[in-house]
Amino acid sequence: MIVVGIDPGLATVGFGVIRKDGQKISPISYGCIRTTDEKKAPERLLEIYDEVKNLFEKYNPDAVSVEKLFFTKNVTSGMGVSEARGIIFLAAAQKSIPVFEYSPNRVKQAITGSGRADKKQMQDMIMRLLGLDEIPRPDDAADGLSIALCHINLMG
Amino acid sequence: MIVVGIDPGLATVGFGVIRKDGQKISPISYGCIRTTDEKKAPERLLEIYDEVKNLFEKYNPDAVSVEKLFFTKNVTSGMGVSEARGIIFLAAAQKSIPVFEYSPNRVKQAITGSGRADKKQMQDMIMRLLGLDEIPRPDDAADGLSIALCHINLMG
Repeated sequence: MIVVGIDPGLATVGFGVIRKDGQKISPISYGCIRTTDEKKAPERLLEIYDEVKNLFEKYNPDAVSVEKLFFTKNVTSGMGVSEARGIIFLAAAQKSIPVFEYSPNRVKQAITGSGRADKKQMQDMIMRLLGLDEIPRPDDAADGLSIALCHINLMG
Repeated sequence: MIVVGIDPGLATVGFGVIRKDGQKISPISYGCIRTTDEKKAPERLLEIYDEVKNLFEKYNPDAVSVEKLFFTKNVTSGMGVSEARGIIFLAAAQKSIPVFEYSPNRVKQAITGSGRADKKQMQDMIMRLLGLDEIPRPDDAADGLSIALCHINLMG
């Protein structure tokens, strides 16, 4: 089973691709898509769409796992995040890949056992669970991996 | 010049297509795209994408005019609206059609001269300005026409 985890945003989309073979879990790829605020939203969304579509074409995942959004922090950036989420949902639907959503707390709990884990604890666990030599950078890529791993853990 | 005006939403996307030839302004088409909440967001967004893409293919507009979103009313429905906006922006960017955004008050002012016009006043003006025999139905279609007409008026 291959899962793509995505941490959506208009400026930065973090992603992580994880494969599970039997009990073996291995990271295939991770990174982030960045867009510049020198461009307008439609162009930025087009860039995100093309990159996400490439990811789905390349890895042909069985599931896409996406961070669920809450608007408590910043309403304006939340709008951009939602626009990007729409794009990711569309790209998944076009390839009939099922989409699963998890709240940040759910992701933390699935990875560390605690919904209140901090960023450092999360990154250490990700590194250990995926057998990586160092903490994945940038943070958005680590978040993408966490969200993919959350889905894999919860699927058993 | 042809302008497509869009009132975005996850359940209902209102649209209006208006042509301007010299001083003559005429409605070409209006209506709405509806999706059911029996389907999940990715499928609903895919339906919206396909319909909006068809609209852009069919009318080859010079501009797309979209209602700007404010989150004061309902945060949850605002997320769906933003996801739909992302899809509309993407479809426009894929055809290199410039997108313009107007706040609800700006639209009201451009149509009636007052940012505080009520729905009835707006619909009467739309009917008169476009030479229609009756008020366009449903309301979302009238909103789509208003947003298109707002752009045409402000472009002179």
